[in-house]
Amino acid sequence: MKKLWDRKTGTKTNQTVENYTVGVDYLLDLELLPYDIKGTMAHAKMLHKIKILDKKELSILITGLNKILSLWKNGKFKIDKSQEDGHTAIEAYLTENCGEVGKKVHTGRSRNDQSLTMTRLFSKEKLGKIKKETENLAKSLEQQIKKQGKIKMPGYTHMQRAMPSSVGMWLGSYCDSLKDDLICLDAVMKIIDQNPLGSAAGYGENTLGLNRGFTAKELGFGKVQANPMYCAFSRGKFENLILQASSIMPQKKNYDVLELIRGNIAVFNGYQNQIENIVKNLPAGYNRDFQLTKEPYMKGIKLALDTLEVMILVIKNLETKKTNLENACSSELYATDEALKLVRTGKNFREAYQEVKEKFYQN
Amino acid sequence: MKKLWDRKTGTKTNQTVENYTVGVDYLLDLELLPYDIKGTMAHAKMLHKIKILDKKELSILITGLNKILSLWKNGKFKIDKSQEDGHTAIEAYLTENCGEVGKKVHTGRSRNDQSLTMTRLFSKEKLGKIKKETENLAKSLEQQIKKQGKIKMPGYTHMQRAMPSSVGMWLGSYCDSLKDDLICLDAVMKIIDQNPLGSAAGYGENTLGLNRGFTAKELGFGKVQANPMYCAFSRGKFENLILQASSIMPQKKNYDVLELIRGNIAVFNGYQNQIENIVKNLPAGYNRDFQLTKEPYMKGIKLALDTLEVMILVIKNLETKKTNLENACSSELYATDEALKLVRTGKNFREAYQEVKEKFYQN
Amino acid sequence: MKKLWDRKTGTKTNQTVENYTVGVDYLLDLELLPYDIKGTMAHAKMLHKIKILDKKELSILITGLNKILSLWKNGKFKIDKSQEDGHTAIEAYLTENCGEVGKKVHTGRSRNDQSLTMTRLFSKEKLGKIKKETENLAKSLEQQIKKQGKIKMPGYTHMQRAMPSSVGMWLGSYCDSLKDDLICLDAVMKIIDQNPLGSAAGYGENTLGLNRGFTAKELGFGKVQANPMYCAFSRGKFENLILQASSIMPQKKNYDVLELIRGNIAVFNGYQNQIENIVKNLPAGYNRDFQLTKEPYMKGIKLALDTLEVMILVIKNLETKKTNLENACSSELYATDEALKLVRTGKNFREAYQEVKEKFYQN
Amino acid sequence: MKKLWDRKTGTKTNQTVENYTVGVDYLLDLELLPYDIKGTMAHAKMLHKIKILDKKELSILITGLNKILSLWKNGKFKIDKSQEDGHTAIEAYLTENCGEVGKKVHTGRSRNDQSLTMTRLFSKEKLGKIKKETENLAKSLEQQIKKQGKIKMPGYTHMQRAMPSSVGMWLGSYCDSLKDDLICLDAVMKIIDQNPLGSAAGYGENTLGLNRGFTAKELGFGKVQANPMYCAFSRGKFENLILQASSIMPQKKNYDVLELIRGNIAVFNGYQNQIENIVKNLPAGYNRDFQLTKEPYMKGIKLALDTLEVMILVIKNLETKKTNLENACSSELYATDEALKLVRTGKNFREAYQEVKEKFYQN
Repeated sequence: MKKLWDRKTGTKTNQTVENYTVGVDYLLDLELLPYDIKGTMAHAKMLHKIKILDKKELSILITGLNKILSLWKNGKFKIDKSQEDGHTAIEAYLTENCGEVGKKVHTGRSRNDQSLTMTRLFSKEKLGKIKKETENLAKSLEQQIKKQGKIKMPGYTHMQRAMPSSVGMWLGSYCDSLKDDLICLDAVMKIIDQNPLGSAAGYGENTLGLNRGFTAKELGFGKVQANPMYCAFSRGKFENLILQASSIMPQKKNYDVLELIRGNIAVFNGYQNQIENIVKNLPAGYNRDFQLTKEPYMKGIKLALDTLEVMILVIKNLETKKTNLENACSSELYATDEALKLVRTGKNFREAYQEVKEKFYQN
Repeated sequence: MKKLWDRKTGTKTNQTVENYTVGVDYLLDLELLPYDIKGTMAHAKMLHKIKILDKKELSILITGLNKILSLWKNGKFKIDKSQEDGHTAIEAYLTENCGEVGKKVHTGRSRNDQSLTMTRLFSKEKLGKIKKETENLAKSLEQQIKKQGKIKMPGYTHMQRAMPSSVGMWLGSYCDSLKDDLICLDAVMKIIDQNPLGSAAGYGENTLGLNRGFTAKELGFGKVQANPMYCAFSRGKFENLILQASSIMPQKKNYDVLELIRGNIAVFNGYQNQIENIVKNLPAGYNRDFQLTKEPYMKGIKLALDTLEVMILVIKNLETKKTNLENACSSELYATDEALKLVRTGKNFREAYQEVKEKFYQN
Repeated sequence: MKKLWDRKTGTKTNQTVENYTVGVDYLLDLELLPYDIKGTMAHAKMLHKIKILDKKELSILITGLNKILSLWKNGKFKIDKSQEDGHTAIEAYLTENCGEVGKKVHTGRSRNDQSLTMTRLFSKEKLGKIKKETENLAKSLEQQIKKQGKIKMPGYTHMQRAMPSSVGMWLGSYCDSLKDDLICLDAVMKIIDQNPLGSAAGYGENTLGLNRGFTAKELGFGKVQANPMYCAFSRGKFENLILQASSIMPQKKNYDVLELIRGNIAVFNGYQNQIENIVKNLPAGYNRDFQLTKEPYMKGIKLALDTLEVMILVIKNLETKKTNLENACSSELYATDEALKLVRTGKNFREAYQEVKEKFYQN
Repeated sequence: MKKLWDRKTGTKTNQTVENYTVGVDYLLDLELLPYDIKGTMAHAKMLHKIKILDKKELSILITGLNKILSLWKNGKFKIDKSQEDGHTAIEAYLTENCGEVGKKVHTGRSRNDQSLTMTRLFSKEKLGKIKKETENLAKSLEQQIKKQGKIKMPGYTHMQRAMPSSVGMWLGSYCDSLKDDLICLDAVMKIIDQNPLGSAAGYGENTLGLNRGFTAKELGFGKVQANPMYCAFSRGKFENLILQASSIMPQKKNYDVLELIRGNIAVFNGYQNQIENIVKNLPAGYNRDFQLTKEPYMKGIKLALDTLEVMILVIKNLETKKTNLENACSSELYATDEALKLVRTGKNFREAYQEVKEKFYQN
């Protein structure tokens, strides 16, 4: 089947160029398909509401879309490379299996509009999951703090033992950081919870009277994203916001999986960096570059979720070596405490500290 | 005067190394001095409350600190390069002018603790200002939308005229984006509004019983940042969050100041990038690297505020060329509208679009 | 078959953690397999030379390795996910099919050593290809300059027509830039042309007397990379150098494939950024993080080559619109020329320019 | 004095906008002034050669330029903020002190042309210095290797002691890396050694017949950079190349200055990142954004040179703790050596290694 949006039928694009432009969209879109179908169903229902589709046409479309979803669940729906992406695959299926009405489902909706809606639905679900896993990780930390938190360990400055600390203080510092991250995740969720469907080709629509409030409600969005130009350029912005808010917790230890987590922070930042720089300084309106954020965005999301899951496992199975840690708490860690005791007797701090330090260095 | 924290008196650090380690801190700290004094005053009051300082000692210190502030306001307080930073300059002044009590003001407080408090106070004030200027910019956009918003202009895709749009839709897309940014700014403000004072050398303090709630209230913080290790590593994290949340609005046009704004986005991102990578993958506990975030952070904040101010001026003085814009709205922009009218007569969209397009290309 | 380097037999790694640590290495390594086999053959020959393997053992190994290669060429050699990577798959095959001698091929060679050699061979081949395609692109540009170079077009400053220019000058600027890039590519080729094989576990080998000069010659390397610690940390460094040297030519136009090239520059930079940040600030010696550079490196190389190939096609098929371009060369482009003519008559430049500009603005 | 290139006399630019556009150029240019004068002298001589200036005019200009240089050396030449940059300051001085001929020195040369030449001369000198300091650092390392290289120390993998190593191997790995860097530095020097003077307003000059070969020779450039469009866009490219080639050596240790070096790598990369992103995706021809690379470029160069100088001092004063290092070489480091000895007796490596490891774990 030919690509639906080709301007001139019959032009055989050079294979090299075709491969370059298609990229891996046809693979990535397979994961996004259920979100596309959900968005398409809402659009079809709305077209019925504003009397572009009659009741029977709507019913045929919904049946067709459900059929695609069920094929997909069984691993039987494929996106052919020549179709380039999931949108074409869906429309092709509907056109071939539902007759004339398959051609109607794009009324008042551009491919870009469709794509925005699909990724927005994907984003909301994944961000919700990231939030939940972040809460789980914080919980795992709290459980470990309860269990092993009181074990003493040295606190380091400049990679040298400096002050008395504890397992609880160490784990707690990450736990508190995660709780602050949750405030960010909530703010970002609030921001992205806007319906982009109905932005049409990026400049809205004035003829049919699309009911954007209806699809917002149907898809569970908090509100309509009213400005159609903002719908378009918010895609990269929101993807960036989500990756920023879900940037992963730094970690360092001599254990394979933790070295990979450490390295993956750089990988994750690279994805974010790609998105940031793809969408920066583009001319206003739609540009094909936007398509390129899909891969780093989806990979970033997956990496964030995988890392959270692995970290939860690591924390749950964390066993600190109590004896080693406590033996490491040598007496010089308590120099400041000693000095402060002298302060209580009236000495000024600078002199008390000097006095204690000399004592420690003599020993 | 010798640096207060030098371990071994008498070692003359090589000048090259000294220059390298001091950097420009002694210049940057001049801007931060009032925040340092504010934090020091709160710490002194707290030391009085927990009976480390008596009433007279506190009074001498407060007078001394106020004297520094008044010298600073008149441009007469200097930080000598050999002092390295503002903390030393303040302590040196107090020691020389207030006698014995000048040595007491650091009781229960490390230089790092002092530095965290100073930058946190700076951050809160600047973030508040960024928020206010963002609101002003949104307001300027709204005024222009009211005034010139109805003027028609072409909407572009792939840098080619594609759809009818308007000055209002164009400016509105930025205005809506800024309003979403305000949600982020609020979340970040909520996160950073925590008192780090009392984290001592990065592992808290257990001997004197510092009253951290007291200083939180005194300094107007929403709460105490309880975990001292988190106090330390949150510095880079918060600086990064603030720059992320205040990242500036993209712009592109053939006018000197706007080309500079476009270029400055890359400069700004570079500062953020510096902070992100300075604090990443460091060993736990305090490391000297942390000091290096100060310059990119302060420059980033300044650039964000300057850019907002300039953008407000640009928007306020924006004059769109009505005739040119409307002449540019040639008939092919309305092809989709035409097609949708055919849809209303019962045609399916794909065929209607084909029909209209052929008409346009024949002309 | 169990992983060969597992310390404790019988530990069933949690599936989540296993997936996280394996990543996509088992897929990426399929592309690298022939390079691994080439390196392994050279190592085996050297072991024979220093009398660790006898003639028969060597012959069995070479036959086994050739068999793997031929299976691979027919798409029949698979790397199982549980094997994690190609090294294990090769050793497993040899152990199962060549008996005892399969276990000998790793004598004096660590997995890290093996991996370094494999990627170094891959790098040399790909860098050679990038160089060749860069030359081809420069050649395509030269052909177009010959064909269409004399067509006049306006030169822009600040996105406004400013000076007379030509298609040849425009294309030539890219062509000259590519030729300078070739100098860099040559330097990088010279740098990477070093044999890492024999670095053993990252600290060399002193017992067997590995003959590193022999394998260097066998594999076509310019010299031995003598310091084994440098062998290890040069991996990320070289990958970074290669991506830097092959960073792709900026392009901007309203044509799908060119918008993708523009966007892909950000994608490419993101890969480079990942490598840079993965290898930065790691503790000395081998760390598992190193493994994570493989994906961004291989994707970066592929993207560079694909983009070069596409650019060559674009340039070959470039047709400039002569009439449009020449009509765009309006008279104000020649203002500076006019002024310079006045200079020839003795006027100073500043005044001549002022005079001409007034003339143009009156018209 | 008014800015020379203002289009409309009398327009008072808003102070905020002026500050924003001037930035710190007027300060940075003070460091660049001698390079600007050198370039201007060469241009003047060439104008004499092609008979735009007579002998007396040339002599007046050269005297004036030498006078500026001598004022500058005594710290008495200032660039006023209202002049924006050094070019204006020089022309203003000449116009005021040399009469009519001061206005002639810009004949056939744009400010952009002048700025390119000045930074290119600066770049060549600084790159030469970086090369020299890199050689010095390599030499310091070689001296230390000679002195302390044979001291044994443990080699680490995954932050755990793993293999026997030595101070010489450790220092040597950096030394070899620096020597490879010198290959890159040479290639970049070869690339940048091109005369941009004569590119005029970015599109060359066809009326006066500027003699670009003459100025190339006068300024010591290897060749003329023929394509004027390439002259313009090569500025950011070359700055980026130079920073890439001089990116500094990673280091990690618990010593103030080394923590700063570690942190400064991120600062340095941030500068590079700023340049890369400022010049990326700009429309063809001159854009004002280009000016913004000046600060990160000059700061990057300074940081590279300062760091090299500090590293040389660090290496020169390096004292390794022989006893501690040798005590740390515990027997398990030699497990692989033991295994390889067994290999020499005929055992296959995998089994020999297993046998030795069990022995070590029993002890």
